[in-house]
Amino acid sequence: MKQDVHVVLSGRWLISMDGNSGAREEAGISVAIAHDKITEIGPNLAAKYPQAEHLACPHGLIMPGLINAHTHAAMSCFRGLADDLPLMDWLTQHIFPREAQLTKEIVYHSTLLSICEMIRSGTTSCNDMYLFAHEVARAVEEAGMRAWLGEVFFDFPSPNYGALENGFASVEELFEVYKDSSLVRITVNPHAVYTCSPVLLQRAAALAEKQHALLHIHLAETKDEVRSCVERYGCSPVQHIENLGLLNERLVAAHCVMVHAEEIELLARRKVKIAHCPESNMKLASGIAPVQQMLNKGLTIGLGTDGSASNNDVDMFGEMSTAAKLQKVHDLDPTSMRADAVLRAATLGGAALLGAETEIGSLVVGKKADLIMLDMNQPHLTPLYNPVSHLVYAAKGSDVLHSVINGKVVMRHRQLTTLDEAALLTEMRRIGETVQRMR
Amino acid sequence: MKQDVHVVLSGRWLISMDGNSGAREEAGISVAIAHDKITEIGPNLAAKYPQAEHLACPHGLIMPGLINAHTHAAMSCFRGLADDLPLMDWLTQHIFPREAQLTKEIVYHSTLLSICEMIRSGTTSCNDMYLFAHEVARAVEEAGMRAWLGEVFFDFPSPNYGALENGFASVEELFEVYKDSSLVRITVNPHAVYTCSPVLLQRAAALAEKQHALLHIHLAETKDEVRSCVERYGCSPVQHIENLGLLNERLVAAHCVMVHAEEIELLARRKVKIAHCPESNMKLASGIAPVQQMLNKGLTIGLGTDGSASNNDVDMFGEMSTAAKLQKVHDLDPTSMRADAVLRAATLGGAALLGAETEIGSLVVGKKADLIMLDMNQPHLTPLYNPVSHLVYAAKGSDVLHSVINGKVVMRHRQLTTLDEAALLTEMRRIGETVQRMR
Repeated sequence: MKQDVHVVLSGRWLISMDGNSGAREEAGISVAIAHDKITEIGPNLAAKYPQAEHLACPHGLIMPGLINAHTHAAMSCFRGLADDLPLMDWLTQHIFPREAQLTKEIVYHSTLLSICEMIRSGTTSCNDMYLFAHEVARAVEEAGMRAWLGEVFFDFPSPNYGALENGFASVEELFEVYKDSSLVRITVNPHAVYTCSPVLLQRAAALAEKQHALLHIHLAETKDEVRSCVERYGCSPVQHIENLGLLNERLVAAHCVMVHAEEIELLARRKVKIAHCPESNMKLASGIAPVQQMLNKGLTIGLGTDGSASNNDVDMFGEMSTAAKLQKVHDLDPTSMRADAVLRAATLGGAALLGAETEIGSLVVGKKADLIMLDMNQPHLTPLYNPVSHLVYAAKGSDVLHSVINGKVVMRHRQLTTLDEAALLTEMRRIGETVQRMR
Repeated sequence: MKQDVHVVLSGRWLISMDGNSGAREEAGISVAIAHDKITEIGPNLAAKYPQAEHLACPHGLIMPGLINAHTHAAMSCFRGLADDLPLMDWLTQHIFPREAQLTKEIVYHSTLLSICEMIRSGTTSCNDMYLFAHEVARAVEEAGMRAWLGEVFFDFPSPNYGALENGFASVEELFEVYKDSSLVRITVNPHAVYTCSPVLLQRAAALAEKQHALLHIHLAETKDEVRSCVERYGCSPVQHIENLGLLNERLVAAHCVMVHAEEIELLARRKVKIAHCPESNMKLASGIAPVQQMLNKGLTIGLGTDGSASNNDVDMFGEMSTAAKLQKVHDLDPTSMRADAVLRAATLGGAALLGAETEIGSLVVGKKADLIMLDMNQPHLTPLYNPVSHLVYAAKGSDVLHSVINGKVVMRHRQLTTLDEAALLTEMRRIGETVQRMR
């Protein structure tokens, strides 16, 4: 095993998220990696493993890679195309008409683009829901990213699979193709209660059950969603999917802005996982999810950016800072969403949301080697009294120096190792021209 | 004049903020600078001025430097020392006791540190209020920053000047020393209505009047401030300073979270300038200022970070993104604080707040050369449909490549030219140890 160690990262601070979220400070604190796993954590391991690549930084902070609990990576092709609009105008006039004209190539490249941005800003896993999921999976594997992903289902014909029947066939195929993938896990993704009939929702849930997979849905995102659900089904979105039997520990519910106290209790009893997306909820003026109340009830919370068309980035450092500050002003309580709670949501909370807390989300020997190193020798991070505070309130995605996913160095000294970034940006400018012409 | 041009910046987009906030797109669009002023704007000026330094970037976006309308730069020495606490606990248990032990050297170096961060993230002017203002001014001039600044006044003895009488003498001296400075303008800074007696407020106002200077105050920041003002003076903070004769076009009021519709009307009638500080108001759980309503009433709005101890950074790109999103969710209206309104607040609005709209805040021939260039060739900024959207919702401080203040290149290819950043960070780590030991 010793001779298999191929990377050693050494810094000055280590935040393991194992037990508590505090930092261990020790010059030369190191993490050794063999194959896809963390094999040792301790001081000055570089000398012990002379054959390994040594990534050292005197002011380095080593921590678990961030986990983006809800995104639509390929929507990077729509970023900034239409802002400052109501959700339904934005969706029906700008996004849906263009999504109807998407192609495999656009989705593939746009997903790669978001992965670039995610790796550069410290994210090592994401939970993606989108069209052309085969292309999303291809991009994820090529980039060496870790992702939970799947084809989105809705009642209307898909630009990818056409009729719903083909959609289910496509997802069954995804499960088959990626059953042994070390990076890709397939999920089942009904879009929302206002775009999926009860029959579709139950069929999706049955597929997730059969495949032991996550069921990932947008839930209780807006007032309009609640109103239309009450009109059509006589109850709120949460109650509606409870009635359909979908509320269980397999469910990842994104947003949950419009949930009242009894619904929070119900979600907690059913062990539903919540993907909190504060910046998207702000930008679309949806509202503020009562996430501190959810934490108080013991709910598992992950943090997500949503797609970069409604955020407008996939930077989890910015999302952490917003999550902490927004809840304080919402609750008028500066002790809401403390820095340690936010950091947990962005790491181990996200892992638990994905049912992967035994594999990722913390730095523990035997877990997958998904980790990042930040260079804390920056004006905006000096002096450093409390590393957790700095990570949540002051650090930027651009402070991430190295990133390792599944044991592979995917960014070294801010250079991506798996992607040709310059070529990708050139291609995305061409795609941008195509997208802009779509009507 | 032609031979005096010493710098030419060339990019692909130019946002002048002159007239409207849209972008002009043209390969090689250039700005020529002679002495401290913009002398020409047009295509491909490099060839016309061969003697000048040429800062070119094929995907460069040239825009006015950002203006931070309210900060306490030296509070960088307290960043992350105490978070997630109520405002009054944070102030009285952690900040005030340490501020009582501050020294000239701490303030000088801590101000330089914030200036590093400001220049690196695109800010070229700030409006600072703090202790040891002579040291703040020294740091500002050395760094080549532009700043409005002054010594803070309150009823209790100051760690700098001791008794209030000395404080006024010190500020009179500041006015004298910096009367001809090209970078430093002195302001008069009573802290707030809960820390300054009516006599002190009126004396400060008289000094500002005599010196034709700005009067800069924290106003209506918290519920507690309103409650204590009503208890002591029988009216709200806004009404209180109206009664004292302080509400006029000379007044820069920071925060204004707790203002109702009639007070907004009053502030507008009196032509008071508002420094909106959304992130600090969120983090301290103060509330959300009704800034779109203020804009609707014609108030001049600047955007400020506040000190980095309550933010926790001085990055105006992050502040712009938050300002836009926060107002949407506060008003439940995604058209609130549109990107162009936010960009205006961070540039020309800040200039107007400072009474300097004829000098800075937009790129116009004859104005001071305070400008920045961003490199838009980034994953998170590609494709680029709308430069204004990207600046507000997607760009990061770290995308700023070059910065020019008063005609001088203060950052070139992300290297600061006026400061020894490495030495400063070493010094700040030493200061951090001192600050941590203070009780």
